[in-house]
Amino acid sequence: MARTRLTPEREGELYGAVLDLLREVGYDALTMDAVAARTHSSKATLYRQWGSKPELVARALRHNKPADVAQIDTGSLRGDFHAMVSMGDDCQMERDSALMRGLVHAVHNNPDLHQALRELLVAPELTGLGVFLHRAVERGEVRADHPALKYVAHMLVGAFVARQLIEDRSVDKAFLADYIDAVLLPALGV
Amino acid sequence: MARTRLTPEREGELYGAVLDLLREVGYDALTMDAVAARTHSSKATLYRQWGSKPELVARALRHNKPADVAQIDTGSLRGDFHAMVSMGDDCQMERDSALMRGLVHAVHNNPDLHQALRELLVAPELTGLGVFLHRAVERGEVRADHPALKYVAHMLVGAFVARQLIEDRSVDKAFLADYIDAVLLPALGV
Repeated sequence: MARTRLTPEREGELYGAVLDLLREVGYDALTMDAVAARTHSSKATLYRQWGSKPELVARALRHNKPADVAQIDTGSLRGDFHAMVSMGDDCQMERDSALMRGLVHAVHNNPDLHQALRELLVAPELTGLGVFLHRAVERGEVRADHPALKYVAHMLVGAFVARQLIEDRSVDKAFLADYIDAVLLPALGV
Repeated sequence: MARTRLTPEREGELYGAVLDLLREVGYDALTMDAVAARTHSSKATLYRQWGSKPELVARALRHNKPADVAQIDTGSLRGDFHAMVSMGDDCQMERDSALMRGLVHAVHNNPDLHQALRELLVAPELTGLGVFLHRAVERGEVRADHPALKYVAHMLVGAFVARQLIEDRSVDKAFLADYIDAVLLPALGV
């Protein structure tokens, strides 16, 4: 698919509008017509640029992420994890977690959205974590065959979901920092 | 509220019908009328026994659980966790996780259901885990002030949710047993 180049500013505006609409009406009620109207663009442009609603939504969510985790390199696994947490912003995390809760149902009913989120949001995040962990192994901080290595993402997902489910609170930086020191690093033997 | 005694068999039948309806139509479309029709009981009886739809659903889900985790007492924390996992049944877990995914959205839109699930399903489970962990502390297996103690439920929730979200697979006994040995016990220093 040949894409007309959008300026990064224009692309950011479009993604911002998609996220606003997601928060206002939810995934199911979000239409390409509404995105076109809100952003003063044509539906044809949206489809040409993004192909489909699930891909547009997944790319908007990805664009919303503060920065690329893989670019962190502090020299220690503990430093890398804490740098990842401190890139976040408590208000942003609270807004994002409301957005994510709304998307859970949409994912259940829309396999295309689940697939797009997995490819565009989950996979790069896992790659980023993989980079951290690979460097930690190379430095000798973690054994290459450590059984907890394959479960780092599971531990992190648990922090986010259980904080909401059990404690009825959103994740914030202080909580994540404590969880990393109490759970992630000890499980990895660091 | 004075409850007429139902026989345990009759109560089990009613709960089974509620779960069947939940799987068939989802929480939002499940009505007390449909439960009454399916179970040949009157709506008045249902309301008298359970008060409300969220409570009926939460009790049905609780009744569905294989057994009370708190009754496990093998003499070691590792033994207790593995006994908990081996009480499960892979087919049952797969059915339950489909049910749970369907309920996530319902919880998002129905604070009463969230509250009922938290009280009737999450709280007893946490109490059960608390009993395990308390005994492990008393035996000297885990330090009383171990920082991972408060996050055991988070780690377990992560196993369930991330297995689905990241790996697109249901949890089974082999996976849980491996996760316990790779993550839970090392995080607790056991």
